[in-house]
Amino acid sequence: MDVISDFKPQSHIKGYFLCKYKQIQKNKNGKDFHSLKLQDGSGIVDAKIWILHNGIGDYNVEQILYVEGEVVLFQDQLQLNVFKLNIAKEGEFDISTLIPKTKEDVEELEEKLFRLIDEIQDIHLKKLLEGIFYEDKIRDKFVLKSAGKSVHHAYLNGLLEHTISVTEIGKHLATFYEEVNTDIVVTGCLLHDLGKLRELSDFPRNDYTDEGQLLGHIVMGYEIIVGEIYKYPDFPQELALILKHILISHHGELEYGSPITPKCIEAMIVHLADYTDSRIKMVEEFISNSNEETYVGFHKLLNRNIRRTNYAQ
Amino acid sequence: MDVISDFKPQSHIKGYFLCKYKQIQKNKNGKDFHSLKLQDGSGIVDAKIWILHNGIGDYNVEQILYVEGEVVLFQDQLQLNVFKLNIAKEGEFDISTLIPKTKEDVEELEEKLFRLIDEIQDIHLKKLLEGIFYEDKIRDKFVLKSAGKSVHHAYLNGLLEHTISVTEIGKHLATFYEEVNTDIVVTGCLLHDLGKLRELSDFPRNDYTDEGQLLGHIVMGYEIIVGEIYKYPDFPQELALILKHILISHHGELEYGSPITPKCIEAMIVHLADYTDSRIKMVEEFISNSNEETYVGFHKLLNRNIRRTNYAQ
Amino acid sequence: MDVISDFKPQSHIKGYFLCKYKQIQKNKNGKDFHSLKLQDGSGIVDAKIWILHNGIGDYNVEQILYVEGEVVLFQDQLQLNVFKLNIAKEGEFDISTLIPKTKEDVEELEEKLFRLIDEIQDIHLKKLLEGIFYEDKIRDKFVLKSAGKSVHHAYLNGLLEHTISVTEIGKHLATFYEEVNTDIVVTGCLLHDLGKLRELSDFPRNDYTDEGQLLGHIVMGYEIIVGEIYKYPDFPQELALILKHILISHHGELEYGSPITPKCIEAMIVHLADYTDSRIKMVEEFISNSNEETYVGFHKLLNRNIRRTNYAQ
Amino acid sequence: MDVISDFKPQSHIKGYFLCKYKQIQKNKNGKDFHSLKLQDGSGIVDAKIWILHNGIGDYNVEQILYVEGEVVLFQDQLQLNVFKLNIAKEGEFDISTLIPKTKEDVEELEEKLFRLIDEIQDIHLKKLLEGIFYEDKIRDKFVLKSAGKSVHHAYLNGLLEHTISVTEIGKHLATFYEEVNTDIVVTGCLLHDLGKLRELSDFPRNDYTDEGQLLGHIVMGYEIIVGEIYKYPDFPQELALILKHILISHHGELEYGSPITPKCIEAMIVHLADYTDSRIKMVEEFISNSNEETYVGFHKLLNRNIRRTNYAQ
Amino acid sequence: MDVISDFKPQSHIKGYFLCKYKQIQKNKNGKDFHSLKLQDGSGIVDAKIWILHNGIGDYNVEQILYVEGEVVLFQDQLQLNVFKLNIAKEGEFDISTLIPKTKEDVEELEEKLFRLIDEIQDIHLKKLLEGIFYEDKIRDKFVLKSAGKSVHHAYLNGLLEHTISVTEIGKHLATFYEEVNTDIVVTGCLLHDLGKLRELSDFPRNDYTDEGQLLGHIVMGYEIIVGEIYKYPDFPQELALILKHILISHHGELEYGSPITPKCIEAMIVHLADYTDSRIKMVEEFISNSNEETYVGFHKLLNRNIRRTNYAQ
Amino acid sequence: MDVISDFKPQSHIKGYFLCKYKQIQKNKNGKDFHSLKLQDGSGIVDAKIWILHNGIGDYNVEQILYVEGEVVLFQDQLQLNVFKLNIAKEGEFDISTLIPKTKEDVEELEEKLFRLIDEIQDIHLKKLLEGIFYEDKIRDKFVLKSAGKSVHHAYLNGLLEHTISVTEIGKHLATFYEEVNTDIVVTGCLLHDLGKLRELSDFPRNDYTDEGQLLGHIVMGYEIIVGEIYKYPDFPQELALILKHILISHHGELEYGSPITPKCIEAMIVHLADYTDSRIKMVEEFISNSNEETYVGFHKLLNRNIRRTNYAQ
Repeated sequence: MDVISDFKPQSHIKGYFLCKYKQIQKNKNGKDFHSLKLQDGSGIVDAKIWILHNGIGDYNVEQILYVEGEVVLFQDQLQLNVFKLNIAKEGEFDISTLIPKTKEDVEELEEKLFRLIDEIQDIHLKKLLEGIFYEDKIRDKFVLKSAGKSVHHAYLNGLLEHTISVTEIGKHLATFYEEVNTDIVVTGCLLHDLGKLRELSDFPRNDYTDEGQLLGHIVMGYEIIVGEIYKYPDFPQELALILKHILISHHGELEYGSPITPKCIEAMIVHLADYTDSRIKMVEEFISNSNEETYVGFHKLLNRNIRRTNYAQ
Repeated sequence: MDVISDFKPQSHIKGYFLCKYKQIQKNKNGKDFHSLKLQDGSGIVDAKIWILHNGIGDYNVEQILYVEGEVVLFQDQLQLNVFKLNIAKEGEFDISTLIPKTKEDVEELEEKLFRLIDEIQDIHLKKLLEGIFYEDKIRDKFVLKSAGKSVHHAYLNGLLEHTISVTEIGKHLATFYEEVNTDIVVTGCLLHDLGKLRELSDFPRNDYTDEGQLLGHIVMGYEIIVGEIYKYPDFPQELALILKHILISHHGELEYGSPITPKCIEAMIVHLADYTDSRIKMVEEFISNSNEETYVGFHKLLNRNIRRTNYAQ
Repeated sequence: MDVISDFKPQSHIKGYFLCKYKQIQKNKNGKDFHSLKLQDGSGIVDAKIWILHNGIGDYNVEQILYVEGEVVLFQDQLQLNVFKLNIAKEGEFDISTLIPKTKEDVEELEEKLFRLIDEIQDIHLKKLLEGIFYEDKIRDKFVLKSAGKSVHHAYLNGLLEHTISVTEIGKHLATFYEEVNTDIVVTGCLLHDLGKLRELSDFPRNDYTDEGQLLGHIVMGYEIIVGEIYKYPDFPQELALILKHILISHHGELEYGSPITPKCIEAMIVHLADYTDSRIKMVEEFISNSNEETYVGFHKLLNRNIRRTNYAQ
Repeated sequence: MDVISDFKPQSHIKGYFLCKYKQIQKNKNGKDFHSLKLQDGSGIVDAKIWILHNGIGDYNVEQILYVEGEVVLFQDQLQLNVFKLNIAKEGEFDISTLIPKTKEDVEELEEKLFRLIDEIQDIHLKKLLEGIFYEDKIRDKFVLKSAGKSVHHAYLNGLLEHTISVTEIGKHLATFYEEVNTDIVVTGCLLHDLGKLRELSDFPRNDYTDEGQLLGHIVMGYEIIVGEIYKYPDFPQELALILKHILISHHGELEYGSPITPKCIEAMIVHLADYTDSRIKMVEEFISNSNEETYVGFHKLLNRNIRRTNYAQ
Repeated sequence: MDVISDFKPQSHIKGYFLCKYKQIQKNKNGKDFHSLKLQDGSGIVDAKIWILHNGIGDYNVEQILYVEGEVVLFQDQLQLNVFKLNIAKEGEFDISTLIPKTKEDVEELEEKLFRLIDEIQDIHLKKLLEGIFYEDKIRDKFVLKSAGKSVHHAYLNGLLEHTISVTEIGKHLATFYEEVNTDIVVTGCLLHDLGKLRELSDFPRNDYTDEGQLLGHIVMGYEIIVGEIYKYPDFPQELALILKHILISHHGELEYGSPITPKCIEAMIVHLADYTDSRIKMVEEFISNSNEETYVGFHKLLNRNIRRTNYAQ
Repeated sequence: MDVISDFKPQSHIKGYFLCKYKQIQKNKNGKDFHSLKLQDGSGIVDAKIWILHNGIGDYNVEQILYVEGEVVLFQDQLQLNVFKLNIAKEGEFDISTLIPKTKEDVEELEEKLFRLIDEIQDIHLKKLLEGIFYEDKIRDKFVLKSAGKSVHHAYLNGLLEHTISVTEIGKHLATFYEEVNTDIVVTGCLLHDLGKLRELSDFPRNDYTDEGQLLGHIVMGYEIIVGEIYKYPDFPQELALILKHILISHHGELEYGSPITPKCIEAMIVHLADYTDSRIKMVEEFISNSNEETYVGFHKLLNRNIRRTNYAQ
């Protein structure tokens, strides 16, 4: 099976791809043709179905397709002219190869997650975290989830990768300042985006759920944590209050969707660790995904051109 | 017993007052004297204890005091020179006369509350509201609470008065537009500020609680509603989701502390009913509390001078 | 005659339509063809004139056309291929059927308008309102006008409908607060958008006039009111000043185009009644005009997705 | 008669002063004494009336007083200890010497005004300006008025001085660009702040009028100009519309109180001439009024420290 | 040779043009054709190469081309169908005729520049300016440069024209206020945009350089001035500091890219002269470049419709 | 010698203190007395000189004084009544004990600085850093300097402490992302606030210099770095450009005083490391400097109440 990043002009290919976009258009003779975008874990390619013959089955957006075709160069871009197309059957393909995923080693990320929990000294926090992440249903979902629809870490395992980075940054920051309870910082970091389990639908769709649009991951994460803490009647009140505060204040400012700003030092650290990882990751992904040598394009959310540093001694 | 609004210069008075402020200062001979502010339901007055003799007992801020003294005019302001002062004993005084309260008839407000619940057609919403407001502990607290520390309705029964106004405005608005479920609007209005039960401490303090500062009434109201709905396993999911959305979006904009903006028409109406009542009430209170004829002063939150309309045919 | 909302694929139709858009394009053989948008009171449709034969008369944007053609389905959208087209003659068609209009009963709205005037107690305000709305030229224009180009109430009789809603909301609000002169509120509501008579051109164009762009309806409304008050030498000065203030402050904030913010309680109420009706109406129209089941689209001005509430007991 | 800028410690003085501030305070023995601020055209001084004997007549803020006293140095500031004080009688004093006024030669400013009108080529604009500024009542008021309460040109003749500066800047700017009608620019500059005739009360008060607070000088200036143009039935419509637009758009942005932004080049120039003169004048006055050598203080409205340039070749 | 502003439909033309845009597209038969935009000093035109025969040489964007073709009218726009095309050879064409340039007389602008330097009284400032502008390499570059990529003065000699306008405005403003050192104002104006020599690449490209994107003209101008002042060991410190301050503060506000706001009066004047010329020039160019009679379009940066004033007595 | 943090009521003390504030006031008999604030490294105390006898020498703000007096309690605050006071002589006192300083071990911080430089791989960056920090004059100044006047790290060695924290955070962040040159990040962090050497005057004053107010530390740091790089003719151009960009972009946004936003990943990291350390340090200092148990006060710059976390397992 061929993958998109290996496509070359004038070659025949076959493979499994996720259909991300489909539009029916008319050619000069009034006949329909299809414009689509096909994705696998290595990239995305424009495709055309010029003639709608028997070899072209019914299909739709968000489905996994088996496709055969010829790669051509059109206006300096690769384009796939499709000969054959069917909906792929469960079991024929490995979904994890068809959607973008983390470049990190997932098992290593999981190990880091459990090591971070292990290192917690506070028994209440440790029990809380174990209750959440040792629970198979949550962990399995958590490991696969992205951290967003498009802004950063918008790929398989993205939520896990982002959570580990934020936690390691937060833990490191906790060493620099007085008055900081490291266990609270680590717990806050590990739980800060838990609401995304419900805010985003599973892959391959990876889009906002109804609940996600009406409540948002901050409030849903709060609701999950409140429910989890409720299971431990002896969970200290002060600790519960601080954790709840960290959850809802982690976006840092009202205009970014936190109904309250961080008021204690642990909440400040969790917010800044999250903010820092998100912003740098946006730049890193923008550079990594580009083939341009120096200026890799205008980043809309950051509202600036991004430039690759071309220097090695 | 005398009340502050009846104080006249050169008169001797006695009465029960709430101590809102106390500062110890030194006179020219290095002797201590006390500056205080005393409040009852009719107003607030500056007071001085010039000499700390036996008649002056120990006392502190937020306590109810029995006070005797003489009223004088100092720099065009009334001032009470205190002769005698003790902490009042439970039972001697009626707390409700010492703190500002609604000008409305409280029983009538309560009746309106129950009538509004009665008129609800939807059995799920009706059961939910009855479960909350028929529960003595909640209702009694709800009836006494203020709707804020200082901005508007910052007095005894203020939360009840505000809730009734918002609900009547919301119910009226619901009649003007298509696509609106009136029962949801009324329920949303009645519940929108429920979190204030925990955000503000009881009178006479009426100040932000610890929880209030760290979570805010939007998130705490959300938590209460989630808990109440949880009691009804057959509560329709769509209805629960919309109610939860109304709760968290009722401030209308992220920068006003709602983590999500109103996305359905009922949420929009609840927000606008709340916004409208709050803004007009600020102006009304500012005018009512002033003795100035035309310009009643600069309103800091509204950032403008407020003017009384002096016209009657 | 056929109306757009009844169009079905593969049917021949004829009817009168307003031309909202016309562009001349070239086909593959270098021949001209026309792309247009045709509107009637029930909706809007894309149309094409593929061949420019004798049956196609001269025509232009904003004109009423008599059209015959065939409805086809192109890329999931209805499209009208035009066979015959002429400019319609005065009298052949009823303009009111060709442009979107209020769903309310217009006569009933007019009756409400006059009842609201009748209920005014203050003789000065009543005379002023009668002088304006009993004057045929103004009333006829006022009844037909829209309340905007596109944002809300952008249809025939929209200004009347919006004015009545705002006034009923304002009148209801006036009952909740002390220090309010209801007659001034009602008069302010009825007059608040009078400047739109000059800001927007008549239907079918319904677009900003030159004056509208350079002065805006707030300043033009002010000018009209100043002129009307001038006719009554005994009109009380205080009353005139308050009315003039309400006119220019009704957008509530400088950044929304009011050169002064509302400083008296009647001005605050008129502003909030207007703000409330505008915002809710935007949501209502967005939902009503959509066929989507739950999420009806992204509302640019409100900057959010709008969701239909799908709940009935 | 003595003037404030010539006061020296340990000297006896007598003179006429405007009372800008009066507060009654109590000394250590419970006796009243008065703190006041006295102003003449050369400056402002703190004064005390320590003993309220027969020589001290009744008086109030905003009145002109005849005062005798002794100048002393208190905490590095001059202070006037008052012996004698009466309300001055009409005719005894020259009001123009008691309030701050322009440093320019007023007659020269008036000549400039008339020369600028003379140079207008367009007969309609010339007639309009002559009708306004040749009218004694308006001109006399215009010549005396300040251009503000405190921000800039807040002194006698300030409006005239500001108007001349803005007009000369605008006229100069008009020479640099194509598509500009200089006569319109000059007329717009001369009329732009005409509304201040009604927005500010006359000296010595020089404070916002009721109308000024409720309507603002932009809208009042608009009303005056509309009334003046109305007198000339043959005044060209295009010209009237542009002038009216210049009037209301001259603050440049909605958030600065213009309900419409400048849309034609003459409106842009009038706005920028006004903006430029206002901003530079704030800095100039701040430096001129200070005795500090380099940093002259923090300017609240400009939100920065202002520094004097200490350089001469 | 023909120039674009003289093109007429159905005429054959030949001439030298700058290629600003090139895209390869496919026609209905799958054959490539080219869409390009050609520019000369008189305007810009769309062009097509329908058939890629021998007469069409290799070429690229930003190159000067010799072109022959036929002008046709397509959708109310002129279009050039190209028959012949080669890269032009150095010497065949005059670059200054191929790119938009100032309408002013460049020699006259240069004379004004030297006259402004001549009039400086301060010997330090005069020497500094002479060292910069008498240096052939700098002056020649300065004279050709634009003042921007697109916003205003985005044409050959634009920097010189803008600099002269700003300086004359600044010099005129200096006459109105006390406390102003005119020599410093004039010097600040002449040098304010010197950094644009390095921020923008030379024509025909006229685009941001790498350095321009990473440092910006404010910081680069600062670096140049620091280097120039360094050449004069006796240059007064106060003077150097003020000049450096003017350089970096000339955008007036932090959000416009000045790291410090203007704190002395000369810096304020330089900023306002620059701001004024930029804003008016945007409007002037927008009107001049349009053929529309009244409303010339929506100006994105100014965020408003721009209107031509159609009035002449 | 006594230190302020050990002061107890009713005790006689003597010691060396820095005079931070001095005001001359008058008592009830018209006699002068002095109010001052005295500081040492342990805190700050109000002091009074009630009688100006022979034992009280001349002195001024910012001078080091030898003081004897009695500590009393006034309005719950300690106050020092001064008996004796002289300007201290050079050599009698150790300045470093009189001003607040880092709680870190300064030698250890210096060692960290040199270790960070040692670990740099790139020879150009290493040489540059050695040239700066091995130069005694710079290093000695750098080690003593604060990082600000009041916001955070506003104490002796604050700049060194802040620089080390930022660099360690930046270095740690560099390990998480691809496309990052760690040597550039470390160098950028070490140099980012170098301009503060000139922006702030030396202790004990520690206030903005004239240059600091007119240029700011971003531009002055840029000037220093440009000068240092200039010493190495073979310094790679790309490297120099990136370093210069990091310097000026490190405040992250235009409105925070960076004339350009970070466009490459190393600049983004340096900015976020700086932002993170500054924000957390503000909270840490605010908590550490307070004696309040839970809510430690309202932080003006962060615009919120800060709360101490009271939890330990």
